[in-house]
Amino acid sequence: MSLFSALFEPGRIALIGASSDEKRTTSRPQRFLTKHGFTGEILPINPGRAEIFGLKAYKDIDAVPGTIDHAYILLNGKDAVAALAACGRRGVKVASILAGGFADAGAAGASLQDELVRIVKETGIRLVGPNSIGTVSTDPPMALTANAAFAIDKLRAGSWGLVSQSGSLIGALLSRADARGVGFSRLISVGNEVDLAVGELADLLVDDPKTKAILLFMETLRDGDRLARAARRAHAAGKPVIAYKLGRSEIGQELAKSHTGAIAGSDATFDAFCRRHGIVRVSMFESLVDVPALLVDRPPVKGKRVAVATTTGGGAAMVVDNMAMAGLDIAGPPLALVDWLKPLGIAAGEGKLVDLTLAGARPDIVAGTIERLLADPNNDAVLFVVGSSAQFNPELAVEPLTRFAHTQKPFAVSLTPTAEKSLSLLTAAGVAAFRHPESCAEAMAACLLSTAPQPLPAITQPSQGAIDAFLAGRVSGFDERRAADLFSALGVPVAKAMAVPDAKRVASATTEVGPPVVLKILSADIAHKTEAGGVALGVPDGQAAALAAREIEKRVRAHAPTARLDGFLIQKMERGLAEVILGFRRDPLVGPTVTVGLGGVLAEIYKDAATRLAPVDEAEARQMIDEVKGLATIRGYRNLPEGDVTALARAVAALSRLAHEAFAEVAEAEINPLLVKRDGEGVVAVDGLVVLR
Amino acid sequence: MSLFSALFEPGRIALIGASSDEKRTTSRPQRFLTKHGFTGEILPINPGRAEIFGLKAYKDIDAVPGTIDHAYILLNGKDAVAALAACGRRGVKVASILAGGFADAGAAGASLQDELVRIVKETGIRLVGPNSIGTVSTDPPMALTANAAFAIDKLRAGSWGLVSQSGSLIGALLSRADARGVGFSRLISVGNEVDLAVGELADLLVDDPKTKAILLFMETLRDGDRLARAARRAHAAGKPVIAYKLGRSEIGQELAKSHTGAIAGSDATFDAFCRRHGIVRVSMFESLVDVPALLVDRPPVKGKRVAVATTTGGGAAMVVDNMAMAGLDIAGPPLALVDWLKPLGIAAGEGKLVDLTLAGARPDIVAGTIERLLADPNNDAVLFVVGSSAQFNPELAVEPLTRFAHTQKPFAVSLTPTAEKSLSLLTAAGVAAFRHPESCAEAMAACLLSTAPQPLPAITQPSQGAIDAFLAGRVSGFDERRAADLFSALGVPVAKAMAVPDAKRVASATTEVGPPVVLKILSADIAHKTEAGGVALGVPDGQAAALAAREIEKRVRAHAPTARLDGFLIQKMERGLAEVILGFRRDPLVGPTVTVGLGGVLAEIYKDAATRLAPVDEAEARQMIDEVKGLATIRGYRNLPEGDVTALARAVAALSRLAHEAFAEVAEAEINPLLVKRDGEGVVAVDGLVVLR
Repeated sequence: MSLFSALFEPGRIALIGASSDEKRTTSRPQRFLTKHGFTGEILPINPGRAEIFGLKAYKDIDAVPGTIDHAYILLNGKDAVAALAACGRRGVKVASILAGGFADAGAAGASLQDELVRIVKETGIRLVGPNSIGTVSTDPPMALTANAAFAIDKLRAGSWGLVSQSGSLIGALLSRADARGVGFSRLISVGNEVDLAVGELADLLVDDPKTKAILLFMETLRDGDRLARAARRAHAAGKPVIAYKLGRSEIGQELAKSHTGAIAGSDATFDAFCRRHGIVRVSMFESLVDVPALLVDRPPVKGKRVAVATTTGGGAAMVVDNMAMAGLDIAGPPLALVDWLKPLGIAAGEGKLVDLTLAGARPDIVAGTIERLLADPNNDAVLFVVGSSAQFNPELAVEPLTRFAHTQKPFAVSLTPTAEKSLSLLTAAGVAAFRHPESCAEAMAACLLSTAPQPLPAITQPSQGAIDAFLAGRVSGFDERRAADLFSALGVPVAKAMAVPDAKRVASATTEVGPPVVLKILSADIAHKTEAGGVALGVPDGQAAALAAREIEKRVRAHAPTARLDGFLIQKMERGLAEVILGFRRDPLVGPTVTVGLGGVLAEIYKDAATRLAPVDEAEARQMIDEVKGLATIRGYRNLPEGDVTALARAVAALSRLAHEAFAEVAEAEINPLLVKRDGEGVVAVDGLVVLR
Repeated sequence: MSLFSALFEPGRIALIGASSDEKRTTSRPQRFLTKHGFTGEILPINPGRAEIFGLKAYKDIDAVPGTIDHAYILLNGKDAVAALAACGRRGVKVASILAGGFADAGAAGASLQDELVRIVKETGIRLVGPNSIGTVSTDPPMALTANAAFAIDKLRAGSWGLVSQSGSLIGALLSRADARGVGFSRLISVGNEVDLAVGELADLLVDDPKTKAILLFMETLRDGDRLARAARRAHAAGKPVIAYKLGRSEIGQELAKSHTGAIAGSDATFDAFCRRHGIVRVSMFESLVDVPALLVDRPPVKGKRVAVATTTGGGAAMVVDNMAMAGLDIAGPPLALVDWLKPLGIAAGEGKLVDLTLAGARPDIVAGTIERLLADPNNDAVLFVVGSSAQFNPELAVEPLTRFAHTQKPFAVSLTPTAEKSLSLLTAAGVAAFRHPESCAEAMAACLLSTAPQPLPAITQPSQGAIDAFLAGRVSGFDERRAADLFSALGVPVAKAMAVPDAKRVASATTEVGPPVVLKILSADIAHKTEAGGVALGVPDGQAAALAAREIEKRVRAHAPTARLDGFLIQKMERGLAEVILGFRRDPLVGPTVTVGLGGVLAEIYKDAATRLAPVDEAEARQMIDEVKGLATIRGYRNLPEGDVTALARAVAALSRLAHEAFAEVAEAEINPLLVKRDGEGVVAVDGLVVLR
């Protein structure tokens, strides 16, 4: 039996630690399996019972005859570990563990979790959890879960698969989807992800014919590579992957950390991850169940122009306001529509919105309007905003809209009043319908603005020079000069410079580099050279440089008497139109990232930077540069001279090559500043650092 | 009969143009009045009928015996105008007009609207609309409306008053409130606001004992002064005023304009208006019906620390994430709670969130937790986030929460699943409960971060010097020198400068001002002096200045041969730590505003500025300065030298005095840049302009 089948369509399920006491959580899996019509075999295991809820109970897993596809371990701590070991020995395909108290509960739990890891490795059993509240399929039904939310009477089948790092939010999403007439194909709580994690599970759902959209509720990211692969395969299969992730605020990041025991990456890097791999990230919780309807079964959309028609001007204006804030454009009506509406007494065409008003709420007018908007090549999607008719005459209001289910072009309906009946009718007919102007706008933005997975830039083998520069720095420590050597070898132009071991040789080096120069103390012991008095700027000639060197030495000795001084760096003084900061970092969640931002204190205050997964090619680097607002100053803003953006993109791509495994020890690198000169004159790095793990 | 009574509690209502055809909109007011139990007298007026829906119909308003409190005119265009005139003659207290087609429909409609204005002025009748879909009270019931949304069976009474510039959204809000068990006291559609507008109507509701919160749905602002007064009186009366306003995006502003025929102000100025007068502005539509519950009947709150307890870690994390993004802090649990929970096996106190987990979902534990959080002086509000128990055991889940209705300290409940029963129970008990993590966070932010109305700074009589400087500029035109004179007279220090009529006197003036100086051409015909070659910076002495003046003259003549040249301005060259831009503007909606932002191209790109209604005093100016992120550079960021923020605040307050009516002709004024020097060394304006209407 495949892993997928064992997880979602098992024939024989063992419940280890099953209980016949309805008040106990451990009684739920058996009750819910039965309640929702599981047709396979349930094997309760409890040494103290001969029978549970009418089924024969076994004293332990070894007492069960035949194969077991999936074992749900309902025991705690060491007992759970022992049960997993028994399952492993017994050749059970996959086990889930309900209990928490592992890595989510500090050091003691972590060592218990290590035992689980060991068992998985040794026996080859696959594990969901620990801390997994269960796995559910709807068709055929299989509610293997201890989640109280499955006390519902009827489990609605549907075509959305949900993978969640929060167990309790599965219930919340189930109820929210059910309330709007939507069901799931699979729902799985991944817990601590000792073995099976979000990425691999999403990957399984890509090949699941019952699943059309993959929804993720995330607190952290543990198997980024697998998720990346899943998202790319899902895109190729025409299945959207939609993620809600906690940790947008700093407090939220702390919480996610304390809640899951996982390291939280920065929010910007997760955005970069989603963008790179074509995952749609939503910001409203409700959007997780709202957005998929607009994305499934639809070819990719090019463009961001939404045509809007309505019977309620105010209601439509709310959606438009939110769509515009999300970056969408509004397309006015085509002439064909304006001309068609005129004899009906409806004046469209003055504004961008087609307001049919109450007078135009006739089904034939509504349908004729939408038809003409859908046919117009000057928009990319069509939105209809319904007013009170949706509340009072659902059949009548909805009838002209359901004709447009499964259109090629995205078509959505926003309901201004609370109109649950209309919502259900539209949903059942396959029309994407929304309760909130905000979630409707978020769905449209997700549909029109989210990008396909970006091609992965080839990670080219680094040059021998770059590897040598890296090894040299690793041996001696990465002082400024070593860092510059590495940047240069990667392909980032650096300011001409010479290192000399003492003050005596500063004058001749200055002449050789060519004044004016910058003089800096070299010392791996001094992190902040300027504060230590270790820098002299704009030194005009060799004589002045020699003098400055002696003064620097004096100041630095006073400031840091024990620091080892390694001489001086004499660097050509460079000027540019803009100072840029380039960064490379290995994020604990998503891996190598590269960042470009404007340098200087203002850009730091405004947090104005673009981040992507590394490596990037020059085209993607160019997109990053375009995203940094402050870099407008070198993109031709207000007649300011244009900077060499091409050279800057080349430098971003060059630094991003640190993502190669040859440099795996580089935790972080930063060039600050990189000076951008006039267009055609290039860029030059004047300071930077490399930090090893 | 008072205006309030005539509007909301009329005894005798005339329906001019009433219809007995149920399909017609004009039949609705009579049907809805009857349906919802109006106990006064309905007087249908229709020359073609003797009786309508069982009531005697009159041929015209003059045929009706006795007084008429409120007449709803259901006729169109000229007929509506004639009916209003007849009502005015007849002494009807207040009339409403249903029809659109007035200023909302271009020039022809506008002149028809002018006739309404004239009738109101001449007869003293008060008018709601035109384009008003009606006025409704719930207790005693009076559904004087043509709004299809009032086809509902039961009109729920409540204590929130709604004033809306969109008629159709009244229905949407009614249905949304009803769905969560909430009702309104009054609902009024203001239409084109020829006479009665949002502000005056809100003001009436301040004195309405049936209304505890005043909700506004706004597309524009027509009577800002009245609304300001209403908001201040409402605050004093302990009634929150909560506004949703369209036009946050530029497209939204255009739409509002085309939809209402009104001028749209900028969104930032409306924010400034709300802030000044203590109006809570919400961004989610649903918040209009969600937020009031947390704000009514509560003394003002000081502080922004929210303590959070939950039975669903993931659900709580979502609310916390949104609250943190809105600027709230999270307060950890008090020791008393940690100690109380410990023997119950619940470990609180490691994170900031008190996660009771499923184990702690017992009513006594929930109640004991909330009690201890409410008693803790180290938080300002308490939030409880409920999981699936709210869905499955509403009574049980809700019982420990309803005890905390009407607490002094704000207490809110967020429901993670769809749990309508729990929502109703909590709402009925008077506990503020929320369906969405986003609207819950918005409500908490509204409760804790919104400010009381700011004291209105006294508009001091301007000095004679300022008035003289203004008059001089008005006569001669405001060139740079005249503008500087006005700024100086208002109290903004300006760079020492002299104007000379020709190049010959430049040298001596330079000596007198004290070099280095800046030399600028003076001409009211040249807007952009630098582009015209009309500026020389850093001129070191008189001789160099004379030379520079002749070159400037040559360049400017070549650039603008027909411009009238008025000589030269010789200005002391000043330096500062930061360049600031100060602006004054009369906004079409909210009136005089003052803005402070960082100068320079970057700040322009980042749109980093703070705006307030003018005038402001120095304390409020100081708050504005604190809001401008980029001004962190002079507030002591990263060991940068501190600027003279006190002098900057004084300058902001000084410029804002242009709000005085003596300067009513000043449409706009700008100082750019104002240089901020080191702390204690003041500020100095080096360039600026004044634009008259």
